[in-house]
Amino acid sequence: MTTQDEQSEEQIRSLITKYVDAARRKDLAEVMSCYARDLVAFDLMPPLRQGGVAAYEKLWDQAFSMTEGPFGVEMRDLSIAASGDVAFACALEHVKAAAKDGPGADMWLRWTAGLRRVDGAWRIVHEHTSVPIDMESSKGIFDLTP
Amino acid sequence: MTTQDEQSEEQIRSLITKYVDAARRKDLAEVMSCYARDLVAFDLMPPLRQGGVAAYEKLWDQAFSMTEGPFGVEMRDLSIAASGDVAFACALEHVKAAAKDGPGADMWLRWTAGLRRVDGAWRIVHEHTSVPIDMESSKGIFDLTP
Repeated sequence: MTTQDEQSEEQIRSLITKYVDAARRKDLAEVMSCYARDLVAFDLMPPLRQGGVAAYEKLWDQAFSMTEGPFGVEMRDLSIAASGDVAFACALEHVKAAAKDGPGADMWLRWTAGLRRVDGAWRIVHEHTSVPIDMESSKGIFDLTP
Repeated sequence: MTTQDEQSEEQIRSLITKYVDAARRKDLAEVMSCYARDLVAFDLMPPLRQGGVAAYEKLWDQAFSMTEGPFGVEMRDLSIAASGDVAFACALEHVKAAAKDGPGADMWLRWTAGLRRVDGAWRIVHEHTSVPIDMESSKGIFDLTP
């Protein structure tokens, strides 16, 4: 690994910290600034594939609107690989938030991001968020912990 | 993008073709040869996080054993980004297989891979496979199509 790639990993770690802090504050504009415009997202909720940052912004807005108070996000076991202008990262993501209606969320998700350096700044160009499925019941498993 | 990165993308496309063909033939050793030993996998089924290729091999073996005849895999909208020795890829993955017992599988999954070039050869070091969840019923949605 080159010194430049080590610097890239630090820059990406900072970007992810910014992203997590912005989500906690429900700062939609700051969250969205972490993504590239041509983002391809595989989200926890449908559709199968979300293309473009505008459509994805609606999902984030919906998640913020459905919850009361801070939107707790924590990244555990974050791993980053960077070389040149391409990188990927993966982590277990703890989301904890009180709901306006119904039960709140307290769950561990799997989070993967693909990143590119565009005009000198790292941006998330691909994001994949999920829980595993119990194949007997077809239900998502929300109570697994690392 | 450099000529070297274009070559990397072609090499990764070939690796993914090899992986898909090996899965179709249920050639477990050939499928596993596409992964790095220190693979981190977020699979469709639990656990939350699978570390190491040996444990992951059991999941593939189980998937092959549960199905009758070929294990149909198709990658749609495959996108690859490579720079230096790091890359990521994402696609929609169509899995179609007849079950020995019960209904067979015919579903579209979301597939993301993180790759590294190790000793000159690209290997999958991270894999994330999922379906989106219907948050009302908590069920995985298996009938979405691209």
